[in-house]
Amino acid sequence: MTEIVTAAMVVIGDEILSGRTKDKNIGHLADIMTAVGIDLKEVRIVPDEEAEIAAALNTVRARYTYVFTTGGIGPTHDDITADSVAKAFGVPCEYDAKAYAMLEESYARRGIEFTEARKRMARMPRGAEHIDNPVSQAPGFRIGNVHVMAGVPSIFQAMLDNVVPTLKTGTKMLSATVQCPFGEGVIGGPLADIQRRHPDTIIGSYPKYGEGRFWTELVVRARSDEALEAARAEVEAMVAGLAAASGEAS
Amino acid sequence: MTEIVTAAMVVIGDEILSGRTKDKNIGHLADIMTAVGIDLKEVRIVPDEEAEIAAALNTVRARYTYVFTTGGIGPTHDDITADSVAKAFGVPCEYDAKAYAMLEESYARRGIEFTEARKRMARMPRGAEHIDNPVSQAPGFRIGNVHVMAGVPSIFQAMLDNVVPTLKTGTKMLSATVQCPFGEGVIGGPLADIQRRHPDTIIGSYPKYGEGRFWTELVVRARSDEALEAARAEVEAMVAGLAAASGEAS
Repeated sequence: MTEIVTAAMVVIGDEILSGRTKDKNIGHLADIMTAVGIDLKEVRIVPDEEAEIAAALNTVRARYTYVFTTGGIGPTHDDITADSVAKAFGVPCEYDAKAYAMLEESYARRGIEFTEARKRMARMPRGAEHIDNPVSQAPGFRIGNVHVMAGVPSIFQAMLDNVVPTLKTGTKMLSATVQCPFGEGVIGGPLADIQRRHPDTIIGSYPKYGEGRFWTELVVRARSDEALEAARAEVEAMVAGLAAASGEAS
Repeated sequence: MTEIVTAAMVVIGDEILSGRTKDKNIGHLADIMTAVGIDLKEVRIVPDEEAEIAAALNTVRARYTYVFTTGGIGPTHDDITADSVAKAFGVPCEYDAKAYAMLEESYARRGIEFTEARKRMARMPRGAEHIDNPVSQAPGFRIGNVHVMAGVPSIFQAMLDNVVPTLKTGTKMLSATVQCPFGEGVIGGPLADIQRRHPDTIIGSYPKYGEGRFWTELVVRARSDEALEAARAEVEAMVAGLAAASGEAS
């Protein structure tokens, strides 16, 4: 039986919207979700504004099985993600006893002062569980279906590795790619016919352009091998037929 | 007088959400908007589903001065952007006479058949004006405050170059970066004090991690040179003070 599990991502950060930092987390999350069988259905990039973050979270957490956020969980004044998530859930944002003790111990062991700024990293919405951060100190956290993680890619990836085994997953979307030497104007008609004959697949056409010529990558996606293979075979036959006709014409 | 002009971006495409294609357009649009003085306030990545595209567009076109979309304007069955935008605006999607004539002439000149698929590229919401595509054929279009452009980065960039001179722009956000050898736990307290003293600036702290150590980039943003310089000087003095104290301690 086909089971669908969905997700949304909320990227928090003025630095992405200003162009100063180029996001590297969206593509990584997308890859991981596809690999484990969760459909990433929407991504939003929002500024460092509490009301914007809370509104986006409340919309997507009601719509999708899981929500993943990146950014804004450090110790500085511009890290407002914990407060914003607390606001979204209508709970207080307070020191998490476990995270506080863990940070306190870690800094004491290294002989580093546990400053007010560092204490900020232990603040979470009441009821959140922390997500281990094996790279640096500030933990992420989960509350309800929302997973709050760091924006620094290496830390985000490490946190996500901790989160993925806790998620329920759905029937994986399989895919097959057919390289096509023709542009979309040539294949548009017959490809649409194949899509109509295979409604249990999603057939995408991705135009490529380089060195003065166009070609196309045709991608068939389906949740069963049988559906995938049936549509893929028709797409390959279409490309072969066009190539033969093109050869005869030249 | 400070003038604020805002924008949102809607990236349309299952291929981005599946991870198959890594977006390169968000960062480019963000850079250009910052350079010309338009605040990019939100980005949404949505799937190839008409209702999702139309809903996202209707939300953001009401909130921001401009909206820019990428993806889904080619000739294949999965290119549903024109229909979705028409639905959002409540107008029919039909052949645009100017775009149709331009495409017809272009294909005739090159001796290429003007197929039904190719004709699809001339479909636009009624009332749209086309945006020239100097790279390939399919034009983008503008309707109301929404600019609809290609997803292929080289084509998107060329279309955007045509669009930017038509936009009104606001007071540019200026920025200055101060490199800081200390982690956020050290600077969090004093940096928050500087932010409080300079409410007409936005001070961001961006933790960097590499080769086993942490450092921080501190970015001051403001719409006037005076405000920028005053806050930047305080941030530099803070870093210098911490470095001196650290030297004395060691």
